Formats: sequence, structure tokens, C-alpha cells
Amino acid sequence: MNMHDLILISVDDHVIEPPGMFERHLPARFKDRAPRLITTETGADAWSFDGKLIPNFGLNAVVGRPPEEYGMEPTSYSQIRKGTYDVKARIDDMNADGVLASICFPTFPHFAGNRLFDANDKQLARAVISAYNDWHIDEWCAAAPGRFIPLAILPLWDVQASVDELKRVAAKGCRTITFPDNPVAVGLPSIHMGYWDPLWAAAVEYQIVISSHIGSGNQATHSSMESPIDAWIVTMPMAISGAAADWLFSPIFKKFPDLKLSLAEGGIGWIPYLLERANFVYRHHKAWTNADFGELLPSELFQRNFLTCFIEDKFGLHSTDFLNMDMVCWECDYPHSDCVWPHSPEIVWDSVKHLSRELIDKVTHLNAMREFRFDPFAVLGRENCTVGALRAQAQHVQVEPVAGMGGFNPATRSGEPVTSGEVVRMFS
Amino acid sequence: MNMHDLILISVDDHVIEPPGMFERHLPARFKDRAPRLITTETGADAWSFDGKLIPNFGLNAVVGRPPEEYGMEPTSYSQIRKGTYDVKARIDDMNADGVLASICFPTFPHFAGNRLFDANDKQLARAVISAYNDWHIDEWCAAAPGRFIPLAILPLWDVQASVDELKRVAAKGCRTITFPDNPVAVGLPSIHMGYWDPLWAAAVEYQIVISSHIGSGNQATHSSMESPIDAWIVTMPMAISGAAADWLFSPIFKKFPDLKLSLAEGGIGWIPYLLERANFVYRHHKAWTNADFGELLPSELFQRNFLTCFIEDKFGLHSTDFLNMDMVCWECDYPHSDCVWPHSPEIVWDSVKHLSRELIDKVTHLNAMREFRFDPFAVLGRENCTVGALRAQAQHVQVEPVAGMGGFNPATRSGEPVTSGEVVRMFS
Repeated sequence: MNMHDLILISVDDHVIEPPGMFERHLPARFKDRAPRLITTETGADAWSFDGKLIPNFGLNAVVGRPPEEYGMEPTSYSQIRKGTYDVKARIDDMNADGVLASICFPTFPHFAGNRLFDANDKQLARAVISAYNDWHIDEWCAAAPGRFIPLAILPLWDVQASVDELKRVAAKGCRTITFPDNPVAVGLPSIHMGYWDPLWAAAVEYQIVISSHIGSGNQATHSSMESPIDAWIVTMPMAISGAAADWLFSPIFKKFPDLKLSLAEGGIGWIPYLLERANFVYRHHKAWTNADFGELLPSELFQRNFLTCFIEDKFGLHSTDFLNMDMVCWECDYPHSDCVWPHSPEIVWDSVKHLSRELIDKVTHLNAMREFRFDPFAVLGRENCTVGALRAQAQHVQVEPVAGMGGFNPATRSGEPVTSGEVVRMFS
Repeated sequence: MNMHDLILISVDDHVIEPPGMFERHLPARFKDRAPRLITTETGADAWSFDGKLIPNFGLNAVVGRPPEEYGMEPTSYSQIRKGTYDVKARIDDMNADGVLASICFPTFPHFAGNRLFDANDKQLARAVISAYNDWHIDEWCAAAPGRFIPLAILPLWDVQASVDELKRVAAKGCRTITFPDNPVAVGLPSIHMGYWDPLWAAAVEYQIVISSHIGSGNQATHSSMESPIDAWIVTMPMAISGAAADWLFSPIFKKFPDLKLSLAEGGIGWIPYLLERANFVYRHHKAWTNADFGELLPSELFQRNFLTCFIEDKFGLHSTDFLNMDMVCWECDYPHSDCVWPHSPEIVWDSVKHLSRELIDKVTHLNAMREFRFDPFAVLGRENCTVGALRAQAQHVQVEPVAGMGGFNPATRSGEPVTSGEVVRMFS
């Protein structure tokens, strides 16, 4: 086996929603209130919806730039790579990166649909969510069979409406729904409340995985406004450990042992520490906290119910004795600034080449195929799914970094370290 | 080598300040305004200082209780083990646990002296801090030569006064000062400001280690008020990762390469992940963030300057190829609820027995001895410092759990899981 034999399925990527998508999918009575793109006085593209202006691309869609031109926020479509919002160009970019298939999280609605939760007109918001899902499943994913695992957003302010929407999208092929890692952080009931039980029951019944992305509820904290942005970026993935512990000690997986939760962009190298710590706390404190995992240890419940994933994580992939390697997946994170496009195969191979072929296949694609019930081989033929085969189809794709695309770029302003405060102020 | 041959030096324990300590050490003109203990209407002991009432033991001094009687806050001296505040009893308890030596963090002033920073009368507060240090060094530590590594608190609202106090305590044997993991969280300038440079320079000149305890600045977050307290306890140590990244990307260790920082109670198993992540972010983002580690990688700087420690961390101690084992120490955490007194040797041995004698000696005592310039062997003779030798002196010590000591104990109130909210409300 060599790098070209890898088959890469990513459980965490992102799509930038293209203009016009809502008008095409909303019922006629809502069309005039559809989210629509406008250009602001500063030349930025923004979504106008429900009386608010929501900046697009708030999430560093910088793929394809030279690193010195990365920044936190390109502001218009002219400043971002076409593969971020055009599905044909996306397939080209996936081929160039040897990536077979992808789960794409939303951008304008935020990772879990958060920005639609507090809309004034709930009927409209619910219709927008369904329109979003129809666009995502019927246009984006359907444009390239075998290349996308459909993900849906839900009207989470109403659990029964969420169940209804889950059933509707499940019937048309959806495999996972996105849910905040901590719903309390976005104004919703906590995961410790029975409130969500109908949703978990439906997810189990329809075999839908819950995907919780870092930053979708709890936020990584920066220690000060003067802190280098690097320090904040470093801690963002691992910051999901707080939510992971919260889900782990919740009643959910005891009540719904078949429910699966994917911690998107969380990394894996810190997981064995968390699980040993959870077992220590359970053994040492349960007599007064009344925690009860029945016949399991906390680590065993985690390993049964939690999917994890990595971009580059050599330490995690040297710690295979301490992880459930049946529940570790790979992610690309296209088009965010942590993705290593178009070098994903080289980076993955460097992290996994010491493993057995069996383990490599599990973490690169088999685990994702099983847990998300997704069989691209049946559609495309396995021999056409490898890094080598996909890259052979991408000879025409321009992968050299494109300079001068514009947008926010602190590095052009000074040679001093970019601070967290500089980024915070830009978004506030 | 067997368990009885271990020599245990703990870099993180706690002292409960005894009544009368300030009056004995304050100059005459401040004595009538010394912090003093009073008993509230509810029978709780509390410190009265600067017009405020500060509950004692806010930090679960539950050592010696049966686990089902753990809780977050015993409220009076009658409810806590004598070894928490009486140094002779402490030595007995250390002997019973096979612990040779200990660094004791403050309780009433909080881990870094935080509660004294906003006092109205700064002259008084400064005198109280010096009195605290004199009590700690001249009474507590001096009572048992070779058994305590002296730690001091500083008047951190005034960097020059802090430098002066550091020099004063260094001259009488202090080896480490306690500093918030994130000073901004307690109202002080960030570590990215030149403000602190005189303090770092003095620490280097006098070979004083900076000890930053979890929870001394940044707080671990609980996801919701309904979250089981267990989830919060699980994440507390690793929550220092945010501060660790902040220190790592600060200018401090580039400017002061000989300064050492100890991350007290942070654990070790997640460190290799953090360092790989820091290297990834540095390689991948430095072109736009202007981060600059010169000829080092972030991981190399961390391994040169950061001390880490563990209570029970088998995963970390199986990851020795990914850690600098010259900078890993052990901690006991007496008398907090995570300590495993009086079974520390059994727990440590189970974590280290697969290592070479050289590595075992490093993490259990040699690293702490070198970094804190502390040589108990010269005082006591090495043969008297082992777990076996110390426990032989503790035949008379009562180590069986003592029930019915009282205080806050949620478990007695219901069989339901104890929530984070229950604890938050108790402290607010």
C-alpha cells in the first residue's frame, strides 16, 4: 500500500452558500422574504434576512491562497475560491486533493443553523431551514453521487418540528444532522433535559448521526486581547473537550445506546487523556456525585458512542491502543485555514503509514462509510475512489496558490504578531 | 525497585491557613486590621478582611472522609482533617502517604493571592502578603526541614513591589512564586505586556520557578447548570491548556529563556497533542500571524520551559517519547478531593512501574529537586526519604476514613446526580 491507494472520506468540510439558493427552494409565499445576498457599501457580500445583515464567509474561507495572505475573513465571492460555493469546482478541488467524499457544514446559518434560531417569524425560519436542506441534498449532494454525505440543519427551537424535519430529510437520503456541541450556549435547553429525547429517539430510529462541530455552541476562549491569534487557533479543537465531557456524563447514551455523536474538528490526541480522567473521576467521586454508568466505564461508553476525527494527529495515531480505532475518522476542513488542501494525502500518509492496512482503511474511509451508511463504491466502483484515481481526473485543476485575492489580511498591516483582539474587534 | 523504594515529592498541595497566623507576623501598626477568623451565624468559619467576609475552605478540603461524604465545601475547622492546617499533623499525613516533600498553595488568599489584589488599602494588603509569606516560610516550612518547598504570593497589582517581595522571600529560601495562569482574568495586565518583564527578570536572577495553578485565572466552564458536576471536574485540569498556549506564544520565554513555568494540576496526557497542534499551527499559519520562535519549534520551547505534573496519568506515562521527561513531576493535591491520600504510592507505582528506574526517579523527585533547587537528602539522608521509610514513621497515624464530619454534602440530599448548578449556587 502507498499514498495513492488511500481512500479519503472527510467528515468535516464546509460549503459557502451560493447566491439564489433560497429563492429556488422556498414555497412561493415566502420567496419575497428569502435570505438574499446584498453588497454592502464596503463591497462586502452579506446575507439579508429577518431584518438583519449577516456577513458571509465569517469562517476564513482561505483555501487556495498563499499562507501569507490567509486572514480571518474574505468578504466577497470574488475573494474566495470557486470550489467553496460551486459544486462542480468543489468536485475538481476534491479530486485534486484525492478526497473521495465529504460532509459539508453550513456557513451563513452557522455550523448548527444557529443564526436561524432566533428569527422573528418562526414559520419563515422553518421554511428557510427546509429550503436549505432541499438545496443541500437535491442540488449540492445530488450533483455528484457518491461524493457527499448529506447533512441537515434542524429548527431546534422546536423539538417536534426538528423531529418532523429529521424524518423528512432522512427519507431523502440525509445521514447526519448538525447540533450545537452545547445547546445552552445558543439559548436552547441543555442536553440533560428530557426535552431532546424525541429527537434522539428519531435519530436512532432513522440511523442519523449527530454531528457537533467545534465552535457551534461553546467557544474556545482567548486569554487576552493581546494574545497572539495563534494561541487561540491552537486551542480551538481541544476546546470541545468540555462539551465532550458534558455529553459523556449526560443521560443520553444510557437511554439511547445506539445514538452516535461525531465531534467534528475536535482532533484525537487528547481523547485518551480525557477518558482516563473521566474514569478516574467516576471511580473517585461517584459515591457523592451519584454518577452511574451501570456496567460500563465512562471510557467504554465514549468509545461506543462517540466518533472522533483528525486532520494531522501523529500522536493520536501512535496511541491506537488507547482509542477505539473503529470510531476514528479523517477530516479535510476545506476551505478553512486549517485544511492542508491540496496536500491532504501527503499529510495523512505521513500520519498513518506505520499502521496496518486494516487500520488505515478504517480511519480513512471504512468507519465513516459504516457509521454514516454511505457506500460510494457501489456508485463509483472502488478502483475509481483512490487518491491516485481521483487525482488522475484533476490534471486540469489549478492548484497553485492564487495571490492578491483581497479581504482582511492583518499581516499586510504590520510585522507584529496578529492578536486575538484584532480578530475580535473585526467581528464585533 | 518496588513501590516502597519510591521517593515522592509533590509540586501541588494546599494548606488551610490556621487561625492567628496573621496577627503573629504583621507589623504592630497593621495588627488590628489583620485578616481574622470569625464564625458566622450558620456556624461556618470565615476570614474577615478589608470589609469583606471570605469563606474558608472553598476548595473541597475533604481528605480523610469516606467518598460518599465528599462535597465541595466543609465550612468549619471542626469539619476538616487536622493535617490540612496543622503542620505536625500534616507531616504525619505525608508520612502515612509516603510523601517526602510538598509545595503548598494558599487557600484563603486563593491559589495566586488573588483575593488580596483588590483590597482598598494597598499598604495593608502588601503587609498581609509579606506576613503570609513569613508565616509560610518561617513557621509552616521551617517546622520540618526538608519537607516543604517554600512558595510565596506577591502583591501583583504592583510589579515593582512584586519584584521587591520576590527578592525578600528568595533571600529566606523561597523557591517558587504563585502567579495566575491568566492574569487578565483577575484584573491584571496580560502576559504579553512588557509590564511583567521586571518580575521575569528577577525570577531568572533568583532562580525562582513560576507556579500557575489550574483555576487561578481562567476557569474551566460547565456547559449548563444541569450538567453533572463530574463533567466539570473532568475538564478542570485540561482547561489550563488555553493558558498554556497563551504562555507558549507569549514573548516571555524568548526573552527569558531560563524562566521556568509549572502548570500545577494540569495533568500530562494531553500535552503531546497540544504540542503537535502548536507546531501545526506555527507551520501552517505563521506566514500571516507573524509568529516567530526563531530556531525552535513551539514544542521545543514548551519542553525547555514548562514543568508539568500528574496525579494519575497512565496514558501520559505511556507517552514518554512525546514528552520531555526531565520536566514531568508528580503531585499529590492534598487535601483536595482529587488526591488519593493515603494511597498515593500505590497509585503512582501502578502508573510508573513499566518505566526505567532512571525515569521513575526523575518524575517522582529528581526533576522537582533540580528545578526547585531543593535537596531533602542533604537534610534527612536519602535512605530516610523513601515511601517505605516514611510510612514506617506513621504507624500511629489514623488513616481510616472518618465519617460524619459534616459540611456541604449534596449526596445526602438525593440519589440524583449532583449538578454544576447546585455547586455554583452554593458559592454565589
